[in-house]
Amino acid sequence: MAKVKKQPRPKAATPKGFRDYFGAEVTMRKAMLDKIAAVYHRYGFDALETSAVETVEALGKFLPDVERPNAGVFAWQEESETGKMGDWLALRYDLTAPLARVFAQFRNDLPTPYRRYAMGPVWRNEKPGPGRFRQFYQCDADTVGAPSVAADAEICAMLADALEAVGIARGDYLIRINNRKVLNGVLEAVDPAGEADRDAILRSIDKFDKVGEAGVRELLGKGRLDASGAYIDGVGLSDAQAEPVIGFLTSKGAEAPETLTNLRAAVGDSAIGAEGIDELETIATLLAAQGYGADRIVIDPSVVRGLGYYTGPVFEAELTFETTDEKGRVRQFGSVAGGGRYDDLVKRFTGQAVPATGVSIGVDRLLAALQARGLGAAEDAGPVVVTVMDRARMADYQAMATELRKSGIRAEVYLGNPKNFGNQLKYADKRRAPVAVIEGADEKARGVVQLKDLALGAKIAQSASLEEWKSQPAQVEVARADLVAEVRRILARAD
Amino acid sequence: MAKVKKQPRPKAATPKGFRDYFGAEVTMRKAMLDKIAAVYHRYGFDALETSAVETVEALGKFLPDVERPNAGVFAWQEESETGKMGDWLALRYDLTAPLARVFAQFRNDLPTPYRRYAMGPVWRNEKPGPGRFRQFYQCDADTVGAPSVAADAEICAMLADALEAVGIARGDYLIRINNRKVLNGVLEAVDPAGEADRDAILRSIDKFDKVGEAGVRELLGKGRLDASGAYIDGVGLSDAQAEPVIGFLTSKGAEAPETLTNLRAAVGDSAIGAEGIDELETIATLLAAQGYGADRIVIDPSVVRGLGYYTGPVFEAELTFETTDEKGRVRQFGSVAGGGRYDDLVKRFTGQAVPATGVSIGVDRLLAALQARGLGAAEDAGPVVVTVMDRARMADYQAMATELRKSGIRAEVYLGNPKNFGNQLKYADKRRAPVAVIEGADEKARGVVQLKDLALGAKIAQSASLEEWKSQPAQVEVARADLVAEVRRILARAD
Repeated sequence: MAKVKKQPRPKAATPKGFRDYFGAEVTMRKAMLDKIAAVYHRYGFDALETSAVETVEALGKFLPDVERPNAGVFAWQEESETGKMGDWLALRYDLTAPLARVFAQFRNDLPTPYRRYAMGPVWRNEKPGPGRFRQFYQCDADTVGAPSVAADAEICAMLADALEAVGIARGDYLIRINNRKVLNGVLEAVDPAGEADRDAILRSIDKFDKVGEAGVRELLGKGRLDASGAYIDGVGLSDAQAEPVIGFLTSKGAEAPETLTNLRAAVGDSAIGAEGIDELETIATLLAAQGYGADRIVIDPSVVRGLGYYTGPVFEAELTFETTDEKGRVRQFGSVAGGGRYDDLVKRFTGQAVPATGVSIGVDRLLAALQARGLGAAEDAGPVVVTVMDRARMADYQAMATELRKSGIRAEVYLGNPKNFGNQLKYADKRRAPVAVIEGADEKARGVVQLKDLALGAKIAQSASLEEWKSQPAQVEVARADLVAEVRRILARAD
Repeated sequence: MAKVKKQPRPKAATPKGFRDYFGAEVTMRKAMLDKIAAVYHRYGFDALETSAVETVEALGKFLPDVERPNAGVFAWQEESETGKMGDWLALRYDLTAPLARVFAQFRNDLPTPYRRYAMGPVWRNEKPGPGRFRQFYQCDADTVGAPSVAADAEICAMLADALEAVGIARGDYLIRINNRKVLNGVLEAVDPAGEADRDAILRSIDKFDKVGEAGVRELLGKGRLDASGAYIDGVGLSDAQAEPVIGFLTSKGAEAPETLTNLRAAVGDSAIGAEGIDELETIATLLAAQGYGADRIVIDPSVVRGLGYYTGPVFEAELTFETTDEKGRVRQFGSVAGGGRYDDLVKRFTGQAVPATGVSIGVDRLLAALQARGLGAAEDAGPVVVTVMDRARMADYQAMATELRKSGIRAEVYLGNPKNFGNQLKYADKRRAPVAVIEGADEKARGVVQLKDLALGAKIAQSASLEEWKSQPAQVEVARADLVAEVRRILARAD
């Protein structure tokens, strides 16, 4: 072996924009994803786990706003042992691009339509920011090869079921559906000859949330003075020309039939617009037949986010309850999932168009929502800690922990240096142990153990009055033979 | 936007050495890991999920046989938007190096000892081969900061519990424990002055399995004629000098006390050897007190694999039942987990030595073992498929699937082109659907549906006699109102 030079100590840190997940952060997410997977599975969706690494060629350039090749992804070039350079590889940036590759690769073996769900980390080589990481979880369900909008309706129903399965109450969420084709119909109605700047029209529509109806009218017409004082040029449409856009944006009625009637007016004679509205009507009918009413899923033309990416129906799940943001402001929780119908997914590989539709749940946002609703333990239950009073009797202590575990109680023996008993109790605190078990020579001789109720102790220290303290002693002596039963009794009291 | 040149179609393939996992391949592994995690959790171990990406600096060079820096891992250099080059990053190649980084980074916040489990993919930039992939799962549990061998005993007990939890029967596995210090003691006894070639002695010991006692004697002495006809030079020890090695290799007795007595003879006056044997004795005592007898965990000096990496106790879990390999030969299943005590894990970051011990389960091998034992479904249960006889009545079919799902039955509506009914049944076959539901105009008018028992149909096609076919019709007509009850009845029969 060559002599190794003494090197400076490495820095113990994740790379910028990456983080670790500890204890309950891992188990809570897992519990949530398990519930979602159970719903997806019940709908006939099969699990798929693709490799984290793809060829850059297969991934393609799906990422928006990518100017440089490979920018936005973590990529590297294969190098053989002899130094010969090979394929460029990259970490997947979403779960949809790998699905396209899988369907193209295995299309002869997979059922068509192919319903699959996938959950796992994806990686983005982007500038990290607060709460914005370069590795994060996605949770997707897609149906590939189903041209019927029944597939879109199914995805929306499944999404509602999934949100309720993880604990979001009915009434606390709303799934809103729109259709890219309707928007195209509106553009045709506004500008049949294709003379206007359609991108500018789309940008104006996108600002509806911020500037309202009057603002959009200005943007479509002569222009608008921004809140910042900047003047934004208008598209230059006449008031009459702008009318279909306004009709579209304000088309939402109390029930689906009213909305659909308003939309038909907005698209006028446009064939593509009519097709889009027919699709929305079919979706509404299918969902109503399955019992998904307007309290859960609605047709809402204001869903425009990401429309550019999609080719047909689009949907978004929004949590409607209020929460406080990091600055203490009350806000609506907002979007936790989105999706829609997209074509040309598989076409780049095979030349054949394959219709597909799917949804992606924002795992971190939904987790945050559950926590905001007080759902799911923020902390993992700590183990019962068996303390070590006599190093030579480790076997006795291990036997206690074994007994507890056999009864399904999470338990461990203190395995640090037992000399300082205070350190053992500090350790138990750090572990959020509900109970510490103590058996010194005296207890051993008398056939008893001491049980320290740490959960109660913590509560007393925080808030309980002296009377409560007296009536519920935080430490009890019990017969060694009753260890399991007595620990169980304390744990039941803590719940 | 710049005009995009027409490019050749990308190849739909994973990079070399990577693969995808479909359906039951995903869910079976998940079910197995869930059971293991439950055991680890009950032992007081906390989940940890580190980022897949680490700095090359933090990862260090833990991989064996690595000559080139960064070889063996997938690595790339950070590049800022302005093109400035930054840190080298890499995908983790195991779960232990990230644990070292985490413990060093968060040691003031983490409890000590820190018990953690981790499960997830790791990546190796190695030449792929048959059954050898560049991304695979590991499943680790480690205790950091516990100097006591009680921690090692605990890991062994927990490993036994984990194997039984996933379905490996007692008697079908054996955990064997050895101690690196005992081997060091033997080397001291053989060669107190450090004059002999110790690496050559270790290589000879490592060949015990293949060449037996006489073969090792030859290798330690004058040399040995290989089966291939090649002559292997001996270490040049005298017979008397070689005796401790032979004593060590043949020290295993029926029970732990006998083995320990034999080992004490083998290490002679070596202090480190005596320390190692004392540790093994403590481990044996602790495990016996917890009820882990020689039918589950034994002291076995023949465990030498990976000894070089470890500094104290080492352990290996072996499955003792026979299986047939890919060439049809009967073989013992062999090792599915291994681990031991290692120092200097955290020291490279902090300068302070932190004792640690842990185990890693070979996820793919254990999964293969479960399948060899007929445990765990090799296939996911397919959904009930509601066929589409009349495209206009999609809402009716969706309502049926919804009813079935609400009763916990996996179900879906056929969403491909419904024109060719044969295609729908082919699809149901491909999905391994147990039942197809059929409702044409005639059935609708009469308030009934047809249920096609596809599982039974498949069985009849394979093996059943005509009589059985007659007594159990593969298609029944039932009242529409009884859909759920009748499907459930068929599913129960199929189990």
